Amino acid sequence: MTARREFLAGMVAASASPLGPWLRFTRQSQLRVNGARVNGHLAGLSDFGKGPGGTSRVAYSEADLAGRRYAMDLMRSAGLTPRIDPIGNILARLEGREPALPPILIGSHIDSVTNGGNYDGDVGSMGAIEVAQTLRESGTRLRHPLEVVIFQNEEGGTVGSRMMVEAPTEELLNTTARSGITIRDGIPRIGGDLTRLDAARRKQGDYLCYFELHIEQGGILDKEGIKIGVVEGIVGIRWFEVTFTGFANHAGTTPMDQRRDAMLAAAKFTVAVNEAIRAVPGRQVGTVGRLVAVPGTVNVIPGEVTLTVDLRDLAAETLTTFPPKFEEMGRRIAGETNTAFAMRLLSTNEPAPTDVRLRGLIEQSARGLGLSTRTMPSGAGHDAQEIARIAPIAMIFVPSVGGVSHSPNELTRPEDVTNGANVLLHSVLLADRE
Amino acid sequence: MTARREFLAGMVAASASPLGPWLRFTRQSQLRVNGARVNGHLAGLSDFGKGPGGTSRVAYSEADLAGRRYAMDLMRSAGLTPRIDPIGNILARLEGREPALPPILIGSHIDSVTNGGNYDGDVGSMGAIEVAQTLRESGTRLRHPLEVVIFQNEEGGTVGSRMMVEAPTEELLNTTARSGITIRDGIPRIGGDLTRLDAARRKQGDYLCYFELHIEQGGILDKEGIKIGVVEGIVGIRWFEVTFTGFANHAGTTPMDQRRDAMLAAAKFTVAVNEAIRAVPGRQVGTVGRLVAVPGTVNVIPGEVTLTVDLRDLAAETLTTFPPKFEEMGRRIAGETNTAFAMRLLSTNEPAPTDVRLRGLIEQSARGLGLSTRTMPSGAGHDAQEIARIAPIAMIFVPSVGGVSHSPNELTRPEDVTNGANVLLHSVLLADRE
Repeated sequence: MTARREFLAGMVAASASPLGPWLRFTRQSQLRVNGARVNGHLAGLSDFGKGPGGTSRVAYSEADLAGRRYAMDLMRSAGLTPRIDPIGNILARLEGREPALPPILIGSHIDSVTNGGNYDGDVGSMGAIEVAQTLRESGTRLRHPLEVVIFQNEEGGTVGSRMMVEAPTEELLNTTARSGITIRDGIPRIGGDLTRLDAARRKQGDYLCYFELHIEQGGILDKEGIKIGVVEGIVGIRWFEVTFTGFANHAGTTPMDQRRDAMLAAAKFTVAVNEAIRAVPGRQVGTVGRLVAVPGTVNVIPGEVTLTVDLRDLAAETLTTFPPKFEEMGRRIAGETNTAFAMRLLSTNEPAPTDVRLRGLIEQSARGLGLSTRTMPSGAGHDAQEIARIAPIAMIFVPSVGGVSHSPNELTRPEDVTNGANVLLHSVLLADRE
Repeated sequence: MTARREFLAGMVAASASPLGPWLRFTRQSQLRVNGARVNGHLAGLSDFGKGPGGTSRVAYSEADLAGRRYAMDLMRSAGLTPRIDPIGNILARLEGREPALPPILIGSHIDSVTNGGNYDGDVGSMGAIEVAQTLRESGTRLRHPLEVVIFQNEEGGTVGSRMMVEAPTEELLNTTARSGITIRDGIPRIGGDLTRLDAARRKQGDYLCYFELHIEQGGILDKEGIKIGVVEGIVGIRWFEVTFTGFANHAGTTPMDQRRDAMLAAAKFTVAVNEAIRAVPGRQVGTVGRLVAVPGTVNVIPGEVTLTVDLRDLAAETLTTFPPKFEEMGRRIAGETNTAFAMRLLSTNEPAPTDVRLRGLIEQSARGLGLSTRTMPSGAGHDAQEIARIAPIAMIFVPSVGGVSHSPNELTRPEDVTNGANVLLHSVLLADRE
């Protein structure tokens, strides 16, 4: 207690002296988050939604409500005053020395997939609270206000962050989350207010910038032994549904040359998509994740097969050049197999590049902390991609063991959580100073 | 009435005269079934189990019970006395002139698949009753007894006929039919007696032969405009379950060269099975009918895909040479895709050749009726394949429009039903005389 009071007194003295800025810089560069505490908070949060198959803190569920209460309690313990905006996002503000300046936004989400893990979203959320608490406890006052955000329902399609930048469609509000509750019913349930959604909307200039700390969800950092990923951008996504229609017929009585086998067509298409994606240099990925054959019994040639294609790349060009290739391949295969081909766009996400200057701040922070870095795209979607529409964004990735994600086996080592929070802290400090 | 009495009197006179055998032959060769009646019975039977999605007269259901009562009433109207054997098969006997001779067996089944049609099984069952009725009404007494059979639960795996030639396993008795009722519970429900199953068992020599009239369930006769198919044999079947195990991972964050994509492996295997089957001359068929990808969502690389292979041919050799090819292909593809491959045998049916002499009788009958014929395998399973284990068998196929089967759109034209019943009638007459 006494030591702490002396420390605080020293800080006040320093900021008043002409050496203030220099002393502040030196002191700030030595500032560190409390690693034990942030990892403890992660462990505490993991209690909500814990089940035999993993953590299911799905949006609007009882576990989500309990997790949100826990996070707000942590904010209060950190000396912040949390509020719930009309969308249902949790926000807590740390005032700056120049309250008129736009705030720096940091945060993530704490809702999970069904049978997920305890790091996706949680690391960035607990990390952001920890950064605010570290700043407050150390008496470090930023010029800009700092806002910590926990976006609602990220796993349902970056819902909370999206609604912060655009009005929701009726279709979105009627969408059912994994909890079985619609977004429309979920919002009041978590403390939002459907009649005041506009008041929560943010526009260009409202925030100085947004930093999101997150686990990588891929295995690159873990495999290469690199500590910090500096995200170049969040990939754009195209989802397609492809249907081959043939004719369901008896597997025993229909000669091979008289078949209209939708399964064979779908299999050829799946192989062709993989070959097409790999034939071109680049980091684009293409996946057939779902395939449903009708009628789907051992002794009937499938008459209809529906499959999905997930196409992603940071380069917008990829998202426009591949779909016509898929269409051409589908038509050719339909011709070969005497089936009909149809392809429709299910969903679209444009690539969200991160801000070059902010990336530089992350690299500088990591360097100052002695942590290795590499730039990389984010193949997964994040709340940051929505906020990119109104503010410069950047993302800090920490390694996920084996690249496992959306799984109870998701694991980020405590030291990597601490490293990530420290990089977030210093990136905020540098951004504040610019 | 008078005309009929005169006709019967003439027959008695003829059989007493020295010209008896010749007159009988002439008279018999002119014998025809009542086409309107057999088609009327088919239409009558179609009322039981009729629904919006097709006919569902699944084994042991209320509709099955009602259909069986209808068939037994028809047998009684035909002057037969139906009985239910302990297995639950319906049998009705027309005594022969030499009661000690083994009976000629004719028949089929009346149970259907879920949302099936009104011809598969029904044509052979109604046709067999019609043949017995025609013989009886015309005063044609065969040397051999004639038995009409309606086997129970053919669609559940030729259950009634199989139990006539072998004791059921516990596993079979515990199998659930499409009605949701186990075979064990179904047997007493349809009038069988589980404690006396042995009494219903038949062995080599118990029957002179078995003829089954059936729709083709393929499109060959319909396409070629041929009236009667003379079945060479019922194909042997092997069912396999193939599993590729990779690693479920994020579709966005996992680079193409680091994937262990079970869907890609399954797709390559599906294409390879098709190519292998078609690469060898012959009539073998191979089908991937079911494919299940786990987790099966748009944005996850499937970690496990299970699929089935249905392999059929009349040639036993095919059934032994192809499975090792499949294994080799599966292992090669698993190596290419960094997945694991496993293949297990689900079910086995040996090919059941038909009797050459009986085939000749069917051809002779068709020729006498002015009907074109072609020999062909049966790609589908039938009760005849079970009876083949204890007696010479033969099958008469009639065209099914477009080869459609196991569907509400199943259709055999009335004239083809009549033709088939007439060929059955004359085949029985010829077999009786040999």
